[in-house]
Amino acid sequence: MLDQVHAACRDDTSGAPADYIPELAAVAPDSFGLCLATADGLVYQVGDTDIAFSIQSISKPFTYALALADRGIDEVARHIDVEPSGEPFNEISLEPDTQRPSNPMINSGAITATSLITGRDAEDKFERVRRCYSRFAGRELTMDKAVYESESRTGYRNRAIGYMLRSVGVIDVDPDDVVDRYFRQCSIEITCADLAVMAATLADNGVNPKTRERALSTSLTERVLSVMTTCGMYNAAGDWVTTVGLPAKSGVGGGIIAVLPGQLGISVYSPRLDGHGNSVRGVAACRELSKRLELHFCHVTRSARTAIRADYTVAQMPSRLRRTTDDAEVLAAHGERARVYELHGDLLFSGAERAVRAIEGRTAELDALVIDLRRVGEVSRVARDMLEQLQSELVGRGTRVALVDPDAKLGHEVSSLDPDDPRGRVFIDRDTATEWCEDIVLHKHRPPGARPPTSIELAQHPLMAGLDPDYRRRLCAECETRTVARGEVLAERGSPRSGLYLILDGRVRMTFPGTDGRAHRLVTLSSGMSFGEVPMLVREPFVNTVVAETRVRVAVLSPSVFDSLTDDDPRMKLALLQRLAAGAYAQMDMTVRTISANAENY
Amino acid sequence: MLDQVHAACRDDTSGAPADYIPELAAVAPDSFGLCLATADGLVYQVGDTDIAFSIQSISKPFTYALALADRGIDEVARHIDVEPSGEPFNEISLEPDTQRPSNPMINSGAITATSLITGRDAEDKFERVRRCYSRFAGRELTMDKAVYESESRTGYRNRAIGYMLRSVGVIDVDPDDVVDRYFRQCSIEITCADLAVMAATLADNGVNPKTRERALSTSLTERVLSVMTTCGMYNAAGDWVTTVGLPAKSGVGGGIIAVLPGQLGISVYSPRLDGHGNSVRGVAACRELSKRLELHFCHVTRSARTAIRADYTVAQMPSRLRRTTDDAEVLAAHGERARVYELHGDLLFSGAERAVRAIEGRTAELDALVIDLRRVGEVSRVARDMLEQLQSELVGRGTRVALVDPDAKLGHEVSSLDPDDPRGRVFIDRDTATEWCEDIVLHKHRPPGARPPTSIELAQHPLMAGLDPDYRRRLCAECETRTVARGEVLAERGSPRSGLYLILDGRVRMTFPGTDGRAHRLVTLSSGMSFGEVPMLVREPFVNTVVAETRVRVAVLSPSVFDSLTDDDPRMKLALLQRLAAGAYAQMDMTVRTISANAENY
Repeated sequence: MLDQVHAACRDDTSGAPADYIPELAAVAPDSFGLCLATADGLVYQVGDTDIAFSIQSISKPFTYALALADRGIDEVARHIDVEPSGEPFNEISLEPDTQRPSNPMINSGAITATSLITGRDAEDKFERVRRCYSRFAGRELTMDKAVYESESRTGYRNRAIGYMLRSVGVIDVDPDDVVDRYFRQCSIEITCADLAVMAATLADNGVNPKTRERALSTSLTERVLSVMTTCGMYNAAGDWVTTVGLPAKSGVGGGIIAVLPGQLGISVYSPRLDGHGNSVRGVAACRELSKRLELHFCHVTRSARTAIRADYTVAQMPSRLRRTTDDAEVLAAHGERARVYELHGDLLFSGAERAVRAIEGRTAELDALVIDLRRVGEVSRVARDMLEQLQSELVGRGTRVALVDPDAKLGHEVSSLDPDDPRGRVFIDRDTATEWCEDIVLHKHRPPGARPPTSIELAQHPLMAGLDPDYRRRLCAECETRTVARGEVLAERGSPRSGLYLILDGRVRMTFPGTDGRAHRLVTLSSGMSFGEVPMLVREPFVNTVVAETRVRVAVLSPSVFDSLTDDDPRMKLALLQRLAAGAYAQMDMTVRTISANAENY
Repeated sequence: MLDQVHAACRDDTSGAPADYIPELAAVAPDSFGLCLATADGLVYQVGDTDIAFSIQSISKPFTYALALADRGIDEVARHIDVEPSGEPFNEISLEPDTQRPSNPMINSGAITATSLITGRDAEDKFERVRRCYSRFAGRELTMDKAVYESESRTGYRNRAIGYMLRSVGVIDVDPDDVVDRYFRQCSIEITCADLAVMAATLADNGVNPKTRERALSTSLTERVLSVMTTCGMYNAAGDWVTTVGLPAKSGVGGGIIAVLPGQLGISVYSPRLDGHGNSVRGVAACRELSKRLELHFCHVTRSARTAIRADYTVAQMPSRLRRTTDDAEVLAAHGERARVYELHGDLLFSGAERAVRAIEGRTAELDALVIDLRRVGEVSRVARDMLEQLQSELVGRGTRVALVDPDAKLGHEVSSLDPDDPRGRVFIDRDTATEWCEDIVLHKHRPPGARPPTSIELAQHPLMAGLDPDYRRRLCAECETRTVARGEVLAERGSPRSGLYLILDGRVRMTFPGTDGRAHRLVTLSSGMSFGEVPMLVREPFVNTVVAETRVRVAVLSPSVFDSLTDDDPRMKLALLQRLAAGAYAQMDMTVRTISANAENY
């Protein structure tokens, strides 16, 4: 598409390069480069995008940005207004009532902005400007000495503006020194590709999308873009806003940048200028791109719609802690009292409002909830405040909150130990947060008398308890009881079958290696459950590694005993397999219920 | 937060209601209402939000909108420019060079816009205006006759403007008639809550968020908001844009609307006006809300980040068609050659670019892909073009595309039967689309000689084939072979165990009832697989309903035979259970591999 726009605009060879200094007139007049940089730093380009030229007036928004960062919005506003002037960019005039330059995009405002840059001395001040532009461009920029000297020799009008500004006190330092620095900043060499990255940095709320370095704060980026919107293209701002709809700035070097906030930056280089001093093809290419790609700052996505990526109950998507049949029943019946909300994208007011509203609408039904922030980008101040207030309201009403926030996007590095802490608990993964919520639901809704899984004797283990007494006694006698310390490995993935394990106390975790090299939890089992059945039955190695999550007591029926049962007492072995199948059945039934609860979202 | 802003601004009782007609001066001067309407139609409100007052100049953007819809952008532009004027709103002047009103937000431009509304006669023209405003407000609005009559009696200045416009030919109809209609439109009664919905409609790309009725096209909404940005708040547009950052419009009735495109609308009602004719508290409340909620059109979410909700391979998230062990091996090895992309939210250029880039970057690796559009909202023209071009490029390179697009967001109601159709195949659910992609991968990557599951004899069934010949022969003899027509139910959820079923030909689907009342697919099984094992073993009813997807041939081992084996030949029964366990093992190993592939995204 960029190629097409380039081709469509290439034939217009009207206009001429700026010629008020020889160095500007010396460029190849028909050079034409066009770039589009995305908010994640990819630069699409066509044509002469790596020819160096002088930045000229495109420097203005960036020096204004640095002045705002150095002096603050209020002090800069005392020196420079933000109103469109309706006059040529190099007019020697000030606002009649306030005696300020109308805005920082005309020469008088830009020179004033330059005067506000702080630094030890003239050299340091310019170096700070150069470094600022370089942060926006993502590479070290340098000045074109010939252009600077030429500007400096011939810049009578800008010197006049400097003296005029000094005479009314808008600048209170040596005007020659300021104007000299202004010539230097205008002479910084950039390419069309550099400009695209600079524009994309403005689009990306002030963060350079290639280097990820912050070049400007979010609020100052807003202000710079605002001024570019109303004052960036000199006259005909209204026409530019309606037909292009992108904050922009042009320079007599032949460059133009245009910004679609939050989305992308555009740059054009073509030195032939129109009567306003804007690049002829640059203006045409911006119009054409805006039209074809439907870029307009008033036509944006309804971002609140994507703030909630998914929400579901812990009954629909349980944690990987396998519950006892009794507890699973409680969670099936009451699991809708704990929900998981996965948020997504940058969280500004609208997205936060949508999320908070969705959660608040269910507060009365909830004992606990998980807010998963791992896919969230920027969290604005108001969004953080809203989420914090929501949390303290929820806690006040007795609803517990788990944040999944390993990057501390809400600013809480660690969980408080106080269970009533309004900030809730912070987890680094969703599975553990979900388990925590399930525990809360179980604690509230277990029938009177029911108790969480605890230490049992081998004869009480469901696998044994269901057998007839004779079989039970004989099988129990064949088992060896073993105690394993926390963290110890009971079975390694790939190791040969080593027994049928019946858990009597504690928890074991089955894990598998992820491609990230870390061990991931497949499931956690507790007392009354068993593992190792399938390797035993089919004489295949373990598929998962089994680790003790706590101190664990297990009873183990060895492979040799298990195998010998086939010949010694096939009926007893069949009875045992029947019990194993019953466990598998309960497990499958629970899985089906989980999948069925999810299927409607599928 | 709205309450706080209301309280913070309430104490300012400076200014006075407009008094150029008695009806405007007769309002309760200290009324104060404040609303914020979200892009999904919720109106937060505080104070006097249901007091009716006359819309006055807030009518201007809406009549301009209707004129644009009636006459087109170009014809309207021939009559009205879009540049800020820098003059009072009721100035009797035109642009010196073009002899047009500077913009539609000053009286001369607004009266011109009124003159451009089409209709059979004066009454019809006004009725069309009233209906237009009503679509924006989401309820039938009416005119306040007293205000109209008062305006009509005293509107000398507007009559002067009307005659001036007629004299230079900007309007070519009876100016008295036009100005009369202008008075009527200014006298339409609205409340603060109405204005919030009208503003939210502009925020929502022209669709009323409460009624979901389209009030204006997306591109005309852009234009109206553009003009409000540069010309909406009379003078000091630059200051408004930098400090409030919301396209806005005020009226001398005491109302103000402000719009954050894509996100929300704000309205204020407070009749005391400042020297510019703007509501004193209205301006203060807009500033305060913008500051506290961080609302600024240049500070937006990087929406492209949320365009892809999830992407994964068919190996990570297979379809619910259970594959044979051989086919499952092929999919485990080559499943990364088919991917699913779930898109999310409104799809404009940036989001489409991100999605297309992500997909294109993998084209060389892909045989097939699914693009799931079910969670997508608006699809802009450029996004549709990009997705279509992507599809035809993919098809050109031999990659097959499945769209999940039940609402025809890309405009294709039905799939083409032509397999090379660049538009790809269209599915209504993702599961079927995924299965289609798996079939493509299997077709390309099955080892030479391997064949898809087909009709088998009972002795070839894996459950039988692994047994020793004597057991196999005896068990085969005990089975009854049955043929079932497509759509017939083999087992009902909740029905008692009816046998161990070995599939010899065709496909069966296990389903469960969703809370939506529809039957959802849990899994599809084909020849060589079995079902009914667990009910048989534990004497429990079926958990799922089993339906024939095609004509099906099954062999059934009855419960009575299965049970009697325990006594008749326990060793043969153990051998059979061993084979069932082997099948379970293969199934579990595949599940673990699937979960492990997913876990890193978990």
